[in-house]
Amino acid sequence: MMERIHTVEVGTHVGERVRVAGWLHSLRRLGGVSFLVIRDGWGIVQVVAETEAELGPLQDGSIGVESIVAIEGLVVSETQAPGGVELHHLQIEVITPVTEVPPVTINKRKISANIGTLLDHAVVTNRHLARRAILRLASGAMAGFRGTLNALDFTEIQTPKIVAAATESGANVFKLDYFGRAAFLAQSPQFYKQDMVGVFERVFEVGPVFRAEPHDTTRHINEYVSLDAEFGFIENHFTVMALLREVIAGILATFNERYRAELEILQVKMPTVPENIPHIFFPEAQELIFKRYKTDVRGEPDLSPQDERWLGEWAQQEFGSDFLFVTGFPMVKRPFYTYPDPEHPAYSNSFDLLFRGTELVTGGQRLHLYSDYVAALEKAGLPMEPFEAYLEAFRYGMPPHGGFAIGLERLLMQLTGVSNIKLTTTFPRDLTRLTP
Amino acid sequence: MMERIHTVEVGTHVGERVRVAGWLHSLRRLGGVSFLVIRDGWGIVQVVAETEAELGPLQDGSIGVESIVAIEGLVVSETQAPGGVELHHLQIEVITPVTEVPPVTINKRKISANIGTLLDHAVVTNRHLARRAILRLASGAMAGFRGTLNALDFTEIQTPKIVAAATESGANVFKLDYFGRAAFLAQSPQFYKQDMVGVFERVFEVGPVFRAEPHDTTRHINEYVSLDAEFGFIENHFTVMALLREVIAGILATFNERYRAELEILQVKMPTVPENIPHIFFPEAQELIFKRYKTDVRGEPDLSPQDERWLGEWAQQEFGSDFLFVTGFPMVKRPFYTYPDPEHPAYSNSFDLLFRGTELVTGGQRLHLYSDYVAALEKAGLPMEPFEAYLEAFRYGMPPHGGFAIGLERLLMQLTGVSNIKLTTTFPRDLTRLTP
Repeated sequence: MMERIHTVEVGTHVGERVRVAGWLHSLRRLGGVSFLVIRDGWGIVQVVAETEAELGPLQDGSIGVESIVAIEGLVVSETQAPGGVELHHLQIEVITPVTEVPPVTINKRKISANIGTLLDHAVVTNRHLARRAILRLASGAMAGFRGTLNALDFTEIQTPKIVAAATESGANVFKLDYFGRAAFLAQSPQFYKQDMVGVFERVFEVGPVFRAEPHDTTRHINEYVSLDAEFGFIENHFTVMALLREVIAGILATFNERYRAELEILQVKMPTVPENIPHIFFPEAQELIFKRYKTDVRGEPDLSPQDERWLGEWAQQEFGSDFLFVTGFPMVKRPFYTYPDPEHPAYSNSFDLLFRGTELVTGGQRLHLYSDYVAALEKAGLPMEPFEAYLEAFRYGMPPHGGFAIGLERLLMQLTGVSNIKLTTTFPRDLTRLTP
Repeated sequence: MMERIHTVEVGTHVGERVRVAGWLHSLRRLGGVSFLVIRDGWGIVQVVAETEAELGPLQDGSIGVESIVAIEGLVVSETQAPGGVELHHLQIEVITPVTEVPPVTINKRKISANIGTLLDHAVVTNRHLARRAILRLASGAMAGFRGTLNALDFTEIQTPKIVAAATESGANVFKLDYFGRAAFLAQSPQFYKQDMVGVFERVFEVGPVFRAEPHDTTRHINEYVSLDAEFGFIENHFTVMALLREVIAGILATFNERYRAELEILQVKMPTVPENIPHIFFPEAQELIFKRYKTDVRGEPDLSPQDERWLGEWAQQEFGSDFLFVTGFPMVKRPFYTYPDPEHPAYSNSFDLLFRGTELVTGGQRLHLYSDYVAALEKAGLPMEPFEAYLEAFRYGMPPHGGFAIGLERLLMQLTGVSNIKLTTTFPRDLTRLTP
């Protein structure tokens, strides 16, 4: 039997007979001529049967779309066809026949189902070329994240997802029966990655995190993938921002180099990352909003979505940048492990990275002295006990350190412009959805 | 301030002054001369203070081991020193002082604490050079796994860990309160990775799986990292075995190329992977045990640990191979989605990979026809309903496919020879252990 090639390789075999295999994406009959599209894991190829007989087992129409077929044919140049080639003089074999009509049409450019139907049938709708392109970009984002950090001598870790105590507070955690004891699903690997800075200095993790937020919005999912990095021997949060800049640039470079087809299907307007991403200190950002947009948000402890949009617009107009760091968020709005700004202790050595006027990443410098943790927990009104095991690392020497977490799904949502974060992941979990 | 270099780079700077930073691993005073060892995220370096004064802030003895220090010094060749170099003419700065004595001594070649103490203080004991070497190999195994599969056009996926139904049966799953509904932690990404073969053809996942097995042995942990691969358009389980061979070889090559220091610390006896790993059909393996070891296990539905050891010995003596595939395990002992051997339907198109006489990986070909799943579930006495969402993929065209799952911790345990699987992971979860 002839060796199978992938659809995306057909173009390099003009004039030869090849064998492709995949899903019968579509079949149109126009008079005696039939146009088939075969989809495999990488792309599609057009296949033309010039006679009914050539359709072989597909002749009688009982073999429907999504059937698994293998087709041998002659590769012919055809500028009208996708990829500039098509197959002629066919020999068709059916591997897995499908007779049922799919619950959602997945061979049109756009999926017309509402999001509920689409997600109910995700095992099938994920095959749609645009859906699949987003899911493939997730793979690329993880590769770009890891590649950049590996090159900088970071070590990948995997930390437990079943934990004894909530990471930051008791709210919005999923509760679990652990051999008769109460346990929780980790909201973040924050403490573990800090502890592992004590081991490897530079660590990252790609893994699920769980948030029991009872909100049903286009920006919430209850299980998502967090791209976490944490490293020691930093100067302050600007060292962390410099790393984040490299990581974002690395992810986008991975997309540009190896995910062109996906970017094209999704018509992504790719940003460029400035060598130096502009940054603005939180109170100065509020001052700027007051002066430029005539709205007084000075003294507010956080930025509103409207504030972020204004700042994004300013960064675009002033620096031509899709990215903007806002630094120094007030301590009152940051978690207890945040390092205060030594010169303005009400503000913190932390940052948000805005992308096109929306928050994309949060990060900063963390406390590294055990005594500072004791004081910070007391100030936050939190008990020591649940944190004691994790904080043991700080009793035995931790360097100045910091890090950040990128929500994989949020990154994909903001980059591709899809309307709902649930569309950026294979099988989303939300308030009501536990299957598929 | 001089730029910091890593300890492992010191050897390339003989005759120069350099700055290193890290943990004060040890400090010995011998007369007026003091020998310090500094540990950073990558290695260690010896530092020699020829006078008390040179010790600077370390002079009075109040600054203990694990303190974070930065040291500038002249790099001098010294064959006795680890790495063949040491630092002289020092300038020492303390970044984070530690005054408490660590709960477990971590600067000796062997940790002398019992495993309970060791794991209670894992945030500190993970810093021990041998502990850290195992944890770093975990990173290398993941890199080797991904690297091999990426090169073969596999797409990385992340699938949900909160699921509505147990993957294979209702036993040994952790139960969760999901907004008032019952849910479970995934025991395996099995169904999801199969569904995603329908999207990408070739997929892999690196992620946590959860087993509520109430056993407290040296081979059980309740949360572990599963390296899963699954792919379509296979011939049968031999296609899967060929892929697994590449993956194992890829992981070992990664260790050999980039993890020499860790292999040396752990004195790992690295195996070689034969171009063709020997394989033996299950009933023939039993026949061989009968003839060679005079024990009649013929007709047993599974292999015992003793059977595996005998087969491992045979593979070693007969083929000089640390690896052996046993194929065709009886259908009665395999999960319902297993593809039967077309010629011997009581046996399956599945395999175990034995490594030095112990099972390392299980895999095989899966059913791909929806009607076969309906029949298999009925035969297994399992209801359709909990599986319906996942099985929808099979109603709409799935190719012949198969895959395998490698337990990361088990791989590390068998390779390094540590006595307890809990020692292969950062922060293990067992019957009684939820912290750190």
